Amino acid sequence: MEHPGSYLAQMRQTAPLVHNITNYVAMNVMANVLLAAGASPAMVHAREEAAEFAGLAQAVSLNIGTVSPPWAEAMEATAQAAAAQEVPWVLDPVAVGATAYRRALGARLLALRPTVIRGNASEILALDGTTAAGKGADATETVATAEEAARALARTSGAVVAVTGPVDFVTDGARAARIANGHALMPRVTALGCSLTGLVAAFVAGQPRFEATVAALAYYGLAGERAGAGAQGPGSFQPAFIDALSAVGPEALDAGARISIA
Amino acid sequence: MEHPGSYLAQMRQTAPLVHNITNYVAMNVMANVLLAAGASPAMVHAREEAAEFAGLAQAVSLNIGTVSPPWAEAMEATAQAAAAQEVPWVLDPVAVGATAYRRALGARLLALRPTVIRGNASEILALDGTTAAGKGADATETVATAEEAARALARTSGAVVAVTGPVDFVTDGARAARIANGHALMPRVTALGCSLTGLVAAFVAGQPRFEATVAALAYYGLAGERAGAGAQGPGSFQPAFIDALSAVGPEALDAGARISIA
Amino acid sequence: MEHPGSYLAQMRQTAPLVHNITNYVAMNVMANVLLAAGASPAMVHAREEAAEFAGLAQAVSLNIGTVSPPWAEAMEATAQAAAAQEVPWVLDPVAVGATAYRRALGARLLALRPTVIRGNASEILALDGTTAAGKGADATETVATAEEAARALARTSGAVVAVTGPVDFVTDGARAARIANGHALMPRVTALGCSLTGLVAAFVAGQPRFEATVAALAYYGLAGERAGAGAQGPGSFQPAFIDALSAVGPEALDAGARISIA
Repeated sequence: MEHPGSYLAQMRQTAPLVHNITNYVAMNVMANVLLAAGASPAMVHAREEAAEFAGLAQAVSLNIGTVSPPWAEAMEATAQAAAAQEVPWVLDPVAVGATAYRRALGARLLALRPTVIRGNASEILALDGTTAAGKGADATETVATAEEAARALARTSGAVVAVTGPVDFVTDGARAARIANGHALMPRVTALGCSLTGLVAAFVAGQPRFEATVAALAYYGLAGERAGAGAQGPGSFQPAFIDALSAVGPEALDAGARISIA
Repeated sequence: MEHPGSYLAQMRQTAPLVHNITNYVAMNVMANVLLAAGASPAMVHAREEAAEFAGLAQAVSLNIGTVSPPWAEAMEATAQAAAAQEVPWVLDPVAVGATAYRRALGARLLALRPTVIRGNASEILALDGTTAAGKGADATETVATAEEAARALARTSGAVVAVTGPVDFVTDGARAARIANGHALMPRVTALGCSLTGLVAAFVAGQPRFEATVAALAYYGLAGERAGAGAQGPGSFQPAFIDALSAVGPEALDAGARISIA
Repeated sequence: MEHPGSYLAQMRQTAPLVHNITNYVAMNVMANVLLAAGASPAMVHAREEAAEFAGLAQAVSLNIGTVSPPWAEAMEATAQAAAAQEVPWVLDPVAVGATAYRRALGARLLALRPTVIRGNASEILALDGTTAAGKGADATETVATAEEAARALARTSGAVVAVTGPVDFVTDGARAARIANGHALMPRVTALGCSLTGLVAAFVAGQPRFEATVAALAYYGLAGERAGAGAQGPGSFQPAFIDALSAVGPEALDAGARISIA
């Protein structure tokens, strides 16, 4: 894919308002990721206003990490409102295989036809129904193991599916790409996967979703590489990562992206 | 205003217990801001105890950022309890213009007569009824645009009103001041505005509210200037800012405050 | 106690899945603490799945910091599920003396027989019924003042009780130890006490609880010493602390632990 930086440039020019219903662990990090990248984040989850708010946003992200019934209701109403107004929405099915409650909610959200689904290999396998396993929020399967499930899930759901890990895999069911950017400290910092989901939402606002998702992942991984170069560990990685998201521009992304067609 | 540092010194000597019902994004940052400044933060929101807890505190802050009905109920009960026991309370009307639910809640809290209201220009305009617009939590209007609305809101509500932005504006309806301290990275880090609301609560505990609010804003902005001087971006700004809040003392505040009568 | 590092080594080898129901302020910090230490954190609180999830975990931590009735219900169900499946669980009775609601919940959770209780001196005194006082989440009593209450609470509850402060005190009712590791900046950063509770849970997963608790406290304090050596204040302390948790290994812990029999 040529010029992934153009998707970053366009996202920054739009500065999309991204409406997130996400988990408690990720909220602050996701907001800072979106601000550093150049988007405008909002966290709004009450059933009394979430669907209305979705209509003000340019993109929506929904994450089931610390979900409970009132939040799940708001997610479903928000997904419906987003679809009705052609606002793209991204699903993050955190630990979807872990409990019966989570599996049922994952299936209900999937039926509302997300624009993009981003998860780790274990989550994509569970959402596709390939496996029912899952150990918390950390992946226990490799990305390669989930490629076929990702393709199948993209075809049945109509979503672009992104499986993130050491090398990410993105598919719309027909096309597929691998993104090799990233750093080993990224999975050792909590909420970076969740926050990436919000960033994907920002990128797909008004842009072609397959290409924009690939560009978002390359940008995120490239910022991770820069942060990791100077970090002493997962603690110092975090502020350096936010700095890098702010510093990396379209030209740097064009030069540093490691994207291949799968 | 002379000697803003004296309000910082008095706040530190009292180390007020500040009871906050705030949004999920801001809680951790606000707690660290209050600890670094020298206050004692507590986050307590359950309807079953929030009003009781307000009676133990020296100040209260209420923020509607990620509100839902049980939290709104607790906020109203806490505001009433605070008023009944003459505990000052500060309102942060995050994105109050964005949805019908939020506008109604803003009006109910306003009717409970906050001691201070702190918001960005868009929020103050919306709370005053001047505009109904609003794009998430980020200001879309300039502070200068909101000055008249702030004066009017101060007169009708009885509150000190603080409009924060590149140059802050504070008024009690009769007097007004501008505070020019601050740094361009501050709006690029999430929850710094929300956390300032908690800090204003700490300053107005047992101190004259107009002067204490002005001093709190100058102190916060001065710490931002110091943090910004060495930061590489919004990520490294954040720990440097907490360090600066801890390091700035009354004398540095007296020397560095840029306050003018408006 | 000899070779506290062996408990760290064993915890890292197991990488236990720790199921936490904790407060909103602490969630992100606790997750990063657990990841840096080598455990696998999960935050799951909905009544619909929390008890089921506890059966997947190797340890559970419950923290009442920002509790409300649905969370309290989930905590009780989770504690019962953990006990039924012999999963150890650790109680963090944040500000348990502050309100009637909190005192009642503390008593109900205590009756479910936690494996370990970790709190500051004020919290242990309140949980033991020695005092009903309490000022938010910050200790107003010294550790030494709470030693007798800790011993009594250990005997009546059957739990190992850890009172943390400048010098920590741990007892199972018969044995007792003091841990002198730590740094003065630690209480100036929010959620470090809460996060330690999650770490204690990770250490007691499959290990003798008195020794594992002592080792966890020494490890945490030693990481604090390392972080404090280079920190400019409470802001820069935080990333340095996470780095130190990741960097400190079993040998460093054996060499640096300052544990004495009380």
